[in-house]
Amino acid sequence: MDFFSDNTAAASPRVMAALAAANAGAAAPYGKDDWTQRVEERFAAIFEREVAVFLVLTGTAANALALASIVKPWGAVLTHEEAHVVEDECGAPEFFTNGAKLVDLPGTGAKLTPEAVTKALSHLRAGDFHQVQAQVLTITQATECGTIYTPAEVRALKEAVTPRGLKLHMDGARFANALVTLGCTPAEITWKAGVDVLSFGGTKNGALAAEAVIFFDPAEAEEMKWRRKRAGQTLSKGRVLGAQFEGLLAHDHWLDLARHANTRAKRLADSVAQGGEARLAWPCQANEVFLVLPPAVQERLKTAGIGYYDWSARSLPPEAPLKEGEVVGRFVMSFATEAEHVEALIAAIAG
Amino acid sequence: MDFFSDNTAAASPRVMAALAAANAGAAAPYGKDDWTQRVEERFAAIFEREVAVFLVLTGTAANALALASIVKPWGAVLTHEEAHVVEDECGAPEFFTNGAKLVDLPGTGAKLTPEAVTKALSHLRAGDFHQVQAQVLTITQATECGTIYTPAEVRALKEAVTPRGLKLHMDGARFANALVTLGCTPAEITWKAGVDVLSFGGTKNGALAAEAVIFFDPAEAEEMKWRRKRAGQTLSKGRVLGAQFEGLLAHDHWLDLARHANTRAKRLADSVAQGGEARLAWPCQANEVFLVLPPAVQERLKTAGIGYYDWSARSLPPEAPLKEGEVVGRFVMSFATEAEHVEALIAAIAG
Amino acid sequence: MDFFSDNTAAASPRVMAALAAANAGAAAPYGKDDWTQRVEERFAAIFEREVAVFLVLTGTAANALALASIVKPWGAVLTHEEAHVVEDECGAPEFFTNGAKLVDLPGTGAKLTPEAVTKALSHLRAGDFHQVQAQVLTITQATECGTIYTPAEVRALKEAVTPRGLKLHMDGARFANALVTLGCTPAEITWKAGVDVLSFGGTKNGALAAEAVIFFDPAEAEEMKWRRKRAGQTLSKGRVLGAQFEGLLAHDHWLDLARHANTRAKRLADSVAQGGEARLAWPCQANEVFLVLPPAVQERLKTAGIGYYDWSARSLPPEAPLKEGEVVGRFVMSFATEAEHVEALIAAIAG
Amino acid sequence: MDFFSDNTAAASPRVMAALAAANAGAAAPYGKDDWTQRVEERFAAIFEREVAVFLVLTGTAANALALASIVKPWGAVLTHEEAHVVEDECGAPEFFTNGAKLVDLPGTGAKLTPEAVTKALSHLRAGDFHQVQAQVLTITQATECGTIYTPAEVRALKEAVTPRGLKLHMDGARFANALVTLGCTPAEITWKAGVDVLSFGGTKNGALAAEAVIFFDPAEAEEMKWRRKRAGQTLSKGRVLGAQFEGLLAHDHWLDLARHANTRAKRLADSVAQGGEARLAWPCQANEVFLVLPPAVQERLKTAGIGYYDWSARSLPPEAPLKEGEVVGRFVMSFATEAEHVEALIAAIAG
Repeated sequence: MDFFSDNTAAASPRVMAALAAANAGAAAPYGKDDWTQRVEERFAAIFEREVAVFLVLTGTAANALALASIVKPWGAVLTHEEAHVVEDECGAPEFFTNGAKLVDLPGTGAKLTPEAVTKALSHLRAGDFHQVQAQVLTITQATECGTIYTPAEVRALKEAVTPRGLKLHMDGARFANALVTLGCTPAEITWKAGVDVLSFGGTKNGALAAEAVIFFDPAEAEEMKWRRKRAGQTLSKGRVLGAQFEGLLAHDHWLDLARHANTRAKRLADSVAQGGEARLAWPCQANEVFLVLPPAVQERLKTAGIGYYDWSARSLPPEAPLKEGEVVGRFVMSFATEAEHVEALIAAIAG
Repeated sequence: MDFFSDNTAAASPRVMAALAAANAGAAAPYGKDDWTQRVEERFAAIFEREVAVFLVLTGTAANALALASIVKPWGAVLTHEEAHVVEDECGAPEFFTNGAKLVDLPGTGAKLTPEAVTKALSHLRAGDFHQVQAQVLTITQATECGTIYTPAEVRALKEAVTPRGLKLHMDGARFANALVTLGCTPAEITWKAGVDVLSFGGTKNGALAAEAVIFFDPAEAEEMKWRRKRAGQTLSKGRVLGAQFEGLLAHDHWLDLARHANTRAKRLADSVAQGGEARLAWPCQANEVFLVLPPAVQERLKTAGIGYYDWSARSLPPEAPLKEGEVVGRFVMSFATEAEHVEALIAAIAG
Repeated sequence: MDFFSDNTAAASPRVMAALAAANAGAAAPYGKDDWTQRVEERFAAIFEREVAVFLVLTGTAANALALASIVKPWGAVLTHEEAHVVEDECGAPEFFTNGAKLVDLPGTGAKLTPEAVTKALSHLRAGDFHQVQAQVLTITQATECGTIYTPAEVRALKEAVTPRGLKLHMDGARFANALVTLGCTPAEITWKAGVDVLSFGGTKNGALAAEAVIFFDPAEAEEMKWRRKRAGQTLSKGRVLGAQFEGLLAHDHWLDLARHANTRAKRLADSVAQGGEARLAWPCQANEVFLVLPPAVQERLKTAGIGYYDWSARSLPPEAPLKEGEVVGRFVMSFATEAEHVEALIAAIAG
Repeated sequence: MDFFSDNTAAASPRVMAALAAANAGAAAPYGKDDWTQRVEERFAAIFEREVAVFLVLTGTAANALALASIVKPWGAVLTHEEAHVVEDECGAPEFFTNGAKLVDLPGTGAKLTPEAVTKALSHLRAGDFHQVQAQVLTITQATECGTIYTPAEVRALKEAVTPRGLKLHMDGARFANALVTLGCTPAEITWKAGVDVLSFGGTKNGALAAEAVIFFDPAEAEEMKWRRKRAGQTLSKGRVLGAQFEGLLAHDHWLDLARHANTRAKRLADSVAQGGEARLAWPCQANEVFLVLPPAVQERLKTAGIGYYDWSARSLPPEAPLKEGEVVGRFVMSFATEAEHVEALIAAIAG
């Protein structure tokens, strides 16, 4: 039993079924298939506006291609220091952008604040050819710490960078998980709040391997078809991506899957909040729970054979640092996490 | 009814079934899953030696990553001017290699000769820092023109570049199709003939989206894990790739699929060879047939609603150029091509 | 005594004097100095229009930065196969452009024709995301073979690519040498004939190390200040470049230097044209002479200790190939080449 | 009168004279000239060991090429957040390395500590393909804040990264200024203390435009000739670089020039240290003085027409932050700074 990540699960049976159903007969290649075409329309409906949609295989590719579309090689991308683009993509953003700089900023619970962003901008002189030029702010929704940004928070961040003309990218590898907590519309938390480009996650949500880059201004996507092909992310049998998303998006299945995962996470977080040796590192707002674990709890989890990741303590609130022997443990729930596993985890924590 | 490409087909039912069967329960991510592990062992058995195997999503990624592993940014890659790396990857090799140069060479039927390669090398001075350095020769098996290289031909090409120390890469997007024609072992047509790195094609052969980069010298693969991740080609749910290949490779299914496709192609080629208005542009040796089509045949195919690609005439034998009004038509057969479709095509050609 | 290249000479004394004179007191750094400012105005006067000027250190940097400004990473640059960008820059264009493709074309005397260009374009489908996109045509003036393009020829080349929207770059490492032969204005052979960006050579003409990238549409130069800085080509003591060009351009010194070099070349070419064992490989139109040298002449030159480069025979007219034992020898004259050296060379050739 | 930078000065007359003297007759191109050859030997003597030397034009190019030689595209370079590579090179290191990541670390007076470096390493997992790999530590000597590292401090930094196998690069744009303060040998502060590659500054020290990349292990320099050429940093008239360095290095002229500049800086720092409204931001150890300037002093400097840069306050000791209205002013002395100018500055500060 382990809670390492939401990527150890299989695909949702409905996604798998959609793919299997699509696997019949000939189809136009390279994304001109019916499934992909329908998915593009579906995204327009979900976001209540015209969008340009590019399906790709991995979250790393989605983020790197999205960023490359809106930053110059001599540009800078402001980001949280624990973001996936910084910590988990082996430099893909730098590779795809031909060397743009990620400017890594701190923030409790992996969240950026307008203050942190404004301070970072003050060190980057606009128009000065000696320096990289701040051109993009990227935020993660839900964050790497399982926290979320409200529409107001997203808007405040966009406003902080608007005077300097930065675009706003949202890494939505766990977009669905954030959305079901927020209870707002997809439009409200994206383009209506200032997001220019979204990496819409499918894989962690229940797909096999499918992500979408969504441009709210299609004009910014004009070069994307070349970028994607050149990156080896344009599938010849494009229905493989289209069908997965069709299965995921139909009947709001994606939201149901996320709701399941969040519910599991909330159960754990609520239990810990009621007292005991472990404590929440920061609020649980999506499908991930981060717990400060004293040695005794670590020991019990080990004995119980329960797997989790030791997480960086960088995003702890400064006023509540780790004590000697404590670690931050990450527990991730997926659409497939079963209730009894969470109960077993709760029991092991409680001792 | 069309014969545009072997990528318009779905996946083989057995591949699909293998994927569906794998889609259950949790699995280690990023290629540490059981399916991928077994596939790596299977490839070692197929090639009768230790190999380093990296599964990726597309042929473009496979080729670009393979080349990037064996050429420096200031290196040159000798290639046929109609190769996929030149014509169909939107500069992916240049992107992944940080700007290595593809040196495009002519050759009948998309095949390179030792003479052409030797001549090209004579224009590239070894060790001279003013020039890009010849470091790789890449060949396609089966070629873009549906012809194949024999083990002796591969060896002769390798010998032509060995004095200059070039590595030999084989783009095997249609490796299976070549193999069933050759009737030799996979080892004989690859490392035993001098191939250093192979792009082993799965997608055109009957997978959904799965290719393998195979290093016959694992030492050359040491950096590949970073390259692949950085390119957004490392799947979190790695079993998606592993299971496809397991389905494809089990019980020599991959060879059966290729044999089916080749048989369809041979039927068409044999029919044309018996006479008529159309003629073979060059020999049909795999699953693609290239026909020189006079206007009347073009017209009949149009009337019959049969789709095919107009192909470049660059690879025609110099002694048999196109006549006024003729075009080269490409007809590709896949594992899914049905006999009656080929017969209908033959009938339309014959008129 | 050798005729290897025009880059073995020192700088013209007047250039050196200008630099020495500039070497006094403080000056604004990074190109904001008075010398550079004046040079920019001087170029506007020379070209009879507003231009954007960027001074750099080497011809390789000038070409690579110029191309990077007008081609996308997935773009293609049509060029002669013997151009400096192909043969002598170790892949700098590919590096600076993040992997654009140089499409190398043949042509007698290193000159491109509209026919060759049109044929090459026919293999590159506009708008197709599978392929690199033809975006730039680059020509060399004077060419690597010492031949030149007339304004009409330049215009014809531009017209051949205009339907496809390509920009025209001119590598003018030996621009002055071409100009004095042509007898036209700098404007006539550049922007009036369709050139968009010019690499204006200083070093071979008599500077120490100074080249200028000149944009005839300043809007295309907007990103150049970042590109140049990022390439390590923005001098802090910018007057080093400004002063060299001021010395070179004042009183048409640059044209006088080129005229001197061309005169020396013409003397050699005229002598050979009058008969003897050697023959001109193609017309001498600037400061380089290419001679087909039979073995006896090679031997005499060796005995006389006269150095020259063996040159590729690729650009010979097809109807006049090398005979057994013959080589093409390149003899380059500079502003510093002395008449008696040319006479000694003539004598050695004549035997 | 201004103290903006040491790059607003001309070249030292002796450097200029050396260049003028070299400007006669033909010379082998591309660094095979006698001047460059002698300079390479001179560097070996200065550093008391075999070295590989590559002359380039700018400090940005020197640093970027040095780093590219020792870091992979997926590597990380630990650096101070105010280093030239971070703040003043417009992303050149990212460009030349094909996207390696600079990890920016804080530190008082622009100096890194073993603690800061060790902490940064703890966030970068060795061997994990999800992450960029820590491969280089770069330090600046003298730093951007005019402070210096002692041999013991350099060694301690190297020891902090040795378990992880990082190479140590030193940006020595003001190496001479550090050296004359340290009073040790060039060897002691470089390779004997663990430095692997040094950017040896010439331009700020008194050259026109000349820097040297020095590899203490020549094996690491094997690819540098291609990297340099490809970057457009290989001069055809290589003596331009060789002669400058010959003039600079002869008779320890470089050390005399640095001593002059440091003496001017020390005069200012000593004066401020004796009391008054301004205070030293951190110790003055080379040729730059950083003063915390209260509003009244700012006003007096403005009135006196004395130029200086407002500097970032990030490197102030945490215990001595700026008070309301204060700024950090940077005053740089060069070999050409005259005593009376410093006295005028002191007078203006004192009021």
